Amino acid sequence: MSWPHKHLLDIEPLSKEEIFYLFELAHRFEEINTRPVKKVPTLKGKSIILYFSEPSTRTKTSFDIAGKRLSADVFSLATKGSSEEKGESLKDTVLTLEAMNPDLIVVRHRHSGAPHFIASKVRCPVINAGDGWHSHPTQALLDGYTLSKYWDDFTGKTLLILGDIAHSRVARSDVALFTKLGVKVRVCGPPTLLPRNIDSWPVEVYYSLEEACRGVDAIQCLRLQLERQEAGLLPSLREYSMRFGLTPSHLSLAAKGVRVLHPGPMNRGVEISSSLADSSVSLILDQVNAGVAIRMALLHTYLMGRVKTS
Amino acid sequence: MSWPHKHLLDIEPLSKEEIFYLFELAHRFEEINTRPVKKVPTLKGKSIILYFSEPSTRTKTSFDIAGKRLSADVFSLATKGSSEEKGESLKDTVLTLEAMNPDLIVVRHRHSGAPHFIASKVRCPVINAGDGWHSHPTQALLDGYTLSKYWDDFTGKTLLILGDIAHSRVARSDVALFTKLGVKVRVCGPPTLLPRNIDSWPVEVYYSLEEACRGVDAIQCLRLQLERQEAGLLPSLREYSMRFGLTPSHLSLAAKGVRVLHPGPMNRGVEISSSLADSSVSLILDQVNAGVAIRMALLHTYLMGRVKTS
Amino acid sequence: MSWPHKHLLDIEPLSKEEIFYLFELAHRFEEINTRPVKKVPTLKGKSIILYFSEPSTRTKTSFDIAGKRLSADVFSLATKGSSEEKGESLKDTVLTLEAMNPDLIVVRHRHSGAPHFIASKVRCPVINAGDGWHSHPTQALLDGYTLSKYWDDFTGKTLLILGDIAHSRVARSDVALFTKLGVKVRVCGPPTLLPRNIDSWPVEVYYSLEEACRGVDAIQCLRLQLERQEAGLLPSLREYSMRFGLTPSHLSLAAKGVRVLHPGPMNRGVEISSSLADSSVSLILDQVNAGVAIRMALLHTYLMGRVKTS
Repeated sequence: MSWPHKHLLDIEPLSKEEIFYLFELAHRFEEINTRPVKKVPTLKGKSIILYFSEPSTRTKTSFDIAGKRLSADVFSLATKGSSEEKGESLKDTVLTLEAMNPDLIVVRHRHSGAPHFIASKVRCPVINAGDGWHSHPTQALLDGYTLSKYWDDFTGKTLLILGDIAHSRVARSDVALFTKLGVKVRVCGPPTLLPRNIDSWPVEVYYSLEEACRGVDAIQCLRLQLERQEAGLLPSLREYSMRFGLTPSHLSLAAKGVRVLHPGPMNRGVEISSSLADSSVSLILDQVNAGVAIRMALLHTYLMGRVKTS
Repeated sequence: MSWPHKHLLDIEPLSKEEIFYLFELAHRFEEINTRPVKKVPTLKGKSIILYFSEPSTRTKTSFDIAGKRLSADVFSLATKGSSEEKGESLKDTVLTLEAMNPDLIVVRHRHSGAPHFIASKVRCPVINAGDGWHSHPTQALLDGYTLSKYWDDFTGKTLLILGDIAHSRVARSDVALFTKLGVKVRVCGPPTLLPRNIDSWPVEVYYSLEEACRGVDAIQCLRLQLERQEAGLLPSLREYSMRFGLTPSHLSLAAKGVRVLHPGPMNRGVEISSSLADSSVSLILDQVNAGVAIRMALLHTYLMGRVKTS
Repeated sequence: MSWPHKHLLDIEPLSKEEIFYLFELAHRFEEINTRPVKKVPTLKGKSIILYFSEPSTRTKTSFDIAGKRLSADVFSLATKGSSEEKGESLKDTVLTLEAMNPDLIVVRHRHSGAPHFIASKVRCPVINAGDGWHSHPTQALLDGYTLSKYWDDFTGKTLLILGDIAHSRVARSDVALFTKLGVKVRVCGPPTLLPRNIDSWPVEVYYSLEEACRGVDAIQCLRLQLERQEAGLLPSLREYSMRFGLTPSHLSLAAKGVRVLHPGPMNRGVEISSSLADSSVSLILDQVNAGVAIRMALLHTYLMGRVKTS
């Protein structure tokens, strides 16, 4: 069966059925990661370029590991000191990369829309690994896949996304994914950290963390970029943490079996308390683990098409 | 058959016949790059070190891809933060690298002659990936290989090299390669950007772009390092561009079937007009593509010797 | 047979017999490094993460080459621009890495004790590739392995460690290893560069290089960090070099067959004279060569356990 999408740029074009297919494929790949020999020859002879114009430990390493465990050749380009920095246009940089015949390009870029622009210029598939404040579809997919191990049915569940919604590509992609799967999504944060057009988002908006937590099945805590404070969008970190930092006591208001997520890296004691991050309701490390598996599923699907599943 | 050269440091030692052999071998390797499985086991178990003391996207990635598609292990050393930066001499750095038993070292260095010095110190083959203003033999080989797809015979053809000749290792290596293949070479640029000893070069010198273009079969536009302006070698960029920037209108003076090359990265609108860079006479992306193939041919030849060709 | 140590953090837990076992295994692996095909499939499908928070050419490349020659997948993380730099705690960074299921983590860290901390948090083996001033066990093992090719018996031999003892992790690990093997260890340097607790070390302390050299079988010259001078711990470099720089004339006082070591990178003319570094008694490049072999032995042992040796 073929996969009807050439690129993965945003969550929106994926159907609910396709998302669940990716979860199922990730589940099959995840087993490889616990074997003594963590390698299958599936993508042997495929060339994958990781083009990251922002620093990234977890996402870049996650793609690198995912690719090599499937036996692909992975070429990691730092743009620090690259042609793009020498004043070459993004278009020329990617056309240059494409002329080396990669089979797939993974892009992280500080500018919203850069992966879409790149996808319009090259012949090979492009996977968006995060662009500006706009979109981070592989993060949303790994968040969903992480919860799929606990939730038999997504319909009727409630997810709270907490923190700096305005500047978060994770928030935007999570909203797109979870609403598509039938989850009710709430957002909560100080008004200065909510996007201006929040009224047009398919979410419920809360300004009180206590109210926002009431009855939710999962909470995604977003990283607070500490530079927001310098920009005058926050009072003090201490005040932010007191009003919007998630602690174990908030969970008593939530639904039974509530789970806590964080895309990382965490500021412990700011957006999430340290004890909560380490508690049994925290799925933060499960997310990282799921990230490798979902990226294996994505690399496989965008390179080889859809496979028959049971 | 054996290959009579241990290192590739400059174009000069190569014979015309050897250059055409490399083109033929590159042609055979190029096909691998369009296969679904872009990998052959030819160089399995060979260790190649890429030692780059200058930033480089395209050349480094090109060697990395070339090596891995032939199944070599490629080790990429950034010298930023390296022992050489800690005050270790270049000699000690390369002797250290050699003591790890690489099979081949690729060197990019900001100092002219560094690859030659390295080659004199180590036992394994060294390939020069660009040294100062001096030499860039793999670029010249890929330029020649790119044109070989269009030119049945190089003899009697005319190539114009345009721009900052003085500070260009590409210009020096192109002159060496193309004159050896029987091509007449012209250079054109402002007097401040021509080398002082240009009279001893086997080229015709032009100061007018219009005159220089008359009847040529190919034009290599060189990148203008924008710092030349700060050094007082240029009037304004705008004036440079008006006098020496290549545009479609110049091509009407050239021979029928003229082709345009650029080693990249380009400053669109400075040394070359954007429309020309994107036009059908531009071989700029073909050069990048050819670069992977020619570097596969070089790695193979300097590691395994000459093979029988049809 | 199983290997009784999960991690390699320090020399101290290793028995004399285990150290000699590692030398013997390194000797068997060293042969691979001189083959035309430098690769064996032993560690295929193993994922090794190199987590280096300090710049390093030789140690990082040595581990990278060692891993890939055994067919492992090696993932190299620069911490420049990493999550740790974004304010994430070291604990969270390593738990994140571990959630990607590496089989082994190699750590270089500017803080003493960081590898021990990491080892206490993760399930996989950790190898210390140098932490602060504290410990550098793989360097000591390669130093010992290098000398094992010349010394049939370590017992009764005398080693002098020369230079900045106070700030040297190499000195600390060498003292631990060589005393365990029955070697008498001397240290020599200016009082400002000896540790305050030197009296509790199992070494003889010398302040005169001439006296220190008398009768020794090997001399390990330490790199002088030039910033020690700025810190006021040295008079001038010239004076340091005159009093503590090793030259060929010192060797006439030593035992017949004396050998000179240096962990690199060297400051020629400061802690060691250039002619001595290049002389036949110098084992400096042998150390680098031995480094790849000993790291192959370590990766194999900590990933696969002990193998039967002849």
